[in-house]
Amino acid sequence: MAHALRLARLGSYTTHPNPRVGCVLVDPVTDEVIATGFHVRAGEGHAEVNALAAAGEQALGCVAYVTLEPCSHTGRTGPCSRALIAAGISRVVIAMRDPNPQVAGRGIAMLQGAGIAVTVGVLEQEARALNPGFLSRMERGRPFVRLKQAMSLDGRTAMASGESQWITGPEARSAVQRLRARSSVVMSGIESVIFDDSRLNVRAEQLGLEAHPLGLEALVARQPLRVVVDTHLRLPLAARILEQDGRTLVVCVADETAAQAERRRLLEAAGAEVLALPAGPEGRVDLEALLRHLAEHEQANEVLLETGAVLAGAMLSAGLVDEMQLFMAPTLLGGEARPLLALPGLEHMAQQRRVEIREIRAVGRDWRITAVPDNGEPVG
Amino acid sequence: MAHALRLARLGSYTTHPNPRVGCVLVDPVTDEVIATGFHVRAGEGHAEVNALAAAGEQALGCVAYVTLEPCSHTGRTGPCSRALIAAGISRVVIAMRDPNPQVAGRGIAMLQGAGIAVTVGVLEQEARALNPGFLSRMERGRPFVRLKQAMSLDGRTAMASGESQWITGPEARSAVQRLRARSSVVMSGIESVIFDDSRLNVRAEQLGLEAHPLGLEALVARQPLRVVVDTHLRLPLAARILEQDGRTLVVCVADETAAQAERRRLLEAAGAEVLALPAGPEGRVDLEALLRHLAEHEQANEVLLETGAVLAGAMLSAGLVDEMQLFMAPTLLGGEARPLLALPGLEHMAQQRRVEIREIRAVGRDWRITAVPDNGEPVG
Repeated sequence: MAHALRLARLGSYTTHPNPRVGCVLVDPVTDEVIATGFHVRAGEGHAEVNALAAAGEQALGCVAYVTLEPCSHTGRTGPCSRALIAAGISRVVIAMRDPNPQVAGRGIAMLQGAGIAVTVGVLEQEARALNPGFLSRMERGRPFVRLKQAMSLDGRTAMASGESQWITGPEARSAVQRLRARSSVVMSGIESVIFDDSRLNVRAEQLGLEAHPLGLEALVARQPLRVVVDTHLRLPLAARILEQDGRTLVVCVADETAAQAERRRLLEAAGAEVLALPAGPEGRVDLEALLRHLAEHEQANEVLLETGAVLAGAMLSAGLVDEMQLFMAPTLLGGEARPLLALPGLEHMAQQRRVEIREIRAVGRDWRITAVPDNGEPVG
Repeated sequence: MAHALRLARLGSYTTHPNPRVGCVLVDPVTDEVIATGFHVRAGEGHAEVNALAAAGEQALGCVAYVTLEPCSHTGRTGPCSRALIAAGISRVVIAMRDPNPQVAGRGIAMLQGAGIAVTVGVLEQEARALNPGFLSRMERGRPFVRLKQAMSLDGRTAMASGESQWITGPEARSAVQRLRARSSVVMSGIESVIFDDSRLNVRAEQLGLEAHPLGLEALVARQPLRVVVDTHLRLPLAARILEQDGRTLVVCVADETAAQAERRRLLEAAGAEVLALPAGPEGRVDLEALLRHLAEHEQANEVLLETGAVLAGAMLSAGLVDEMQLFMAPTLLGGEARPLLALPGLEHMAQQRRVEIREIRAVGRDWRITAVPDNGEPVG
C-alpha cells in the first residue's frame, strides 16, 4: 500500500478534479509486484485500469492494493470494480472508502458481490492526506484551503511601503510553485494583485520537477484557476494576471449598478471571467459562498491562498483556512513592517487563535512551517 | 575530549565568572579513564586539580585532556600547569588556548618547558561554544548577549494592551529559567519590568534540573545580577524585582539633578544599586558602555536580555545581540498585537537585518529558534 501511495503522488499535479489514486497488483504466492498504475488525468484511465492493462493476463489471481475504493459508476471511464472482477483479481486491499456519493461503498459491495475478499482501512490516514481537497469537497462541499505566506523571522511580510521582493530564497519560491501546481485554484485579494501585479501562474522552469516521470510539460498543461477577490472590480485591465495562460475569475459583490455592468464588460473583454456574489459580512465578498461556488462549479479540490494580511486574516477568522504554510526567511524587518495577519477583534489572550504546528522543515536558507488552525472541526 | 566537554557542561550554572572547564585523565597504555574533574565554582578547584586529586598517585604517566589551556598564574588556586607537571602527567591535549591575557599561551609554554608533549585545538569549536561569554569578555571586553523572546507564530509578544501571560508553555518557561541560571546577568528594560512586575530571578523548582549532580540548591546559590535599563529612574520602590535574593542594578542616565539624587537614594534604600552612565544616542542609556561596565566591573560573561520590542530592537540595531532564542508558540495574535522588535529606520528591504538560523527545536508544545544576527563580526 505504501508503494501504491507513492504511485498516487505522481498524479499530484495532474488529476484535478479527480483524486490522486495508485494501484499495485501483487502475486499472492510469490509476493512479486506484477504491475502498477496511477491516475494521471481526468478522462484517462483510473489507477486500477492502468495497472490491469500493464498486467494483462498476469492479473489473474492477483491481489490489488488501491489507495481509494474502486469506482462503481460509469463516468468517463468504465467502473473499476467491474474491471477488477473481470480480470480475475482474487482480493482487493483498499486504503479508504470513496466519499464520493456516486461510489460510497458501492464499489466495495460490487467486489464482494462477485466473491472477492475486500480489506478496507490499510494506511487510511496516509491515503486521506493524498487528497485533502477531494475529501473536503465531497465531505464538506467546499475545497481544502491552504494559506501560503512568506514572512521574516519576526512575522512580517513586507516593508510598510509594501516592498517585499524577495523575502524568501529560490528554493522556497520553487516550493510555492509546486503548491500552485497541485492546486485547483490560486486565490488572492485585489490589494495584493494590484500592488505586486502578481501573475499567480505556474512556471514550468521554477517547479524544480525536471525529474518528474510525467515530464514538465504535462505538469503545466493545466494552469490552476486564478481567483481574485475584488469587491469593487478594481482589477486593472492591463494587469499581468489577465495575460497568463488559463482562466482568471474576478469575484465581486453584486451591486446591480450600471457602472458595475460596464466594468464587468471591460474586464471580460480583457480576458477575465467575472462572478458577482451577494454581499457577505461588512459588504465584502462572502468568502464561504465563494468557496462553495468553487467546489460546485469548478470542482475545486485544493485552493492555494496567496494574499496579504487582510484577506488572509478574514479567511482565518471565518474558520476557512485548513492549513497554513509559512515560509520563514532568516531576516528581521522590524515592527513597522507589514503584519502576517489582520485579525480584527482579537484583543485578549483568551481570544488567541491556536494552531497545531505539524512540521518545520528547512527549504534552502528558509524554513517552512506547516500549521493547522483550530477551526473547531477535524479535517483530513 | 568529548567526555571532558560533557564534564565541563556540568559547571554551566555555577562557574561564573570563571569559564566552564572539564578534564579527563587517561592511561596511555590501556586507554582507561583514570579520573575526571570539572570546575564547579570560583574559589574552588579547577578541573585539572579536581581530576588530579581524584587520581592520586595513579596520575603518574597519564594523558590529560582539558577543554581549556591550563592556567599559569596563581589566582585563588595554584597554577594548574604546575600541578600537572608535579603529578607526572606525560602529555596534555587541550581543546583551546585560554584568551585570558593572564594565561594566553603561558600555560602551554610552562608544560612544554617541563618536557611535556602538548596538543592544542582538539574539538576547539565545541570548546569555544562552552564559554561564549567568557571568550567575549576576554576577546572583546564585553559580555555575550543572548536575546530571549517569547512570540506567537505571527511574531507577536503580547496583546496591544500588553497582556501576555502565558504565550508559551511550561517547558519553554523552564528552558528560560535555565538560560537565566547560566547567565551572569539578566537584563530588561524599565517598561517590561513595570508592566509585568517581573522578578527576573532563577527559581529552583522551575529549572527542570532535579537530576543535576550538583543538586538544585547549588544551582541557585548564585542569582544572576538583575540589570534594569531605566533612563529616568522610574522603577517603583515596591517592584517585586527588589524583593528577590541577589542584586538588582538600576542603570540610568546621569543628569546631576537633585531629583535624580533623591530618587537614587530612595531606590538604594529599597535595595537597588544604581549606576548613572553618561547619555548615549538620543539621551538614552549608552548600551555599549553599559555592557563594557558589566564586563569590567561585574565580570559578566553571558547576559540574558529579556525585554520588550524597544530595548530588544535598540540592542539589535546597535549590533550588541550575539544570539537570539525565540520561543515560538503555536498561536496567532494578529496584526494589532505587540511586535517582536522595534527597528526604527528600517524602511527598505535592502536594510533588512539578516540572521542565521542555527537550530529550530520543539520545546514542549512550543518551538525554540536559535538565530545569530549578522553583526558584521564573527563570534564564538
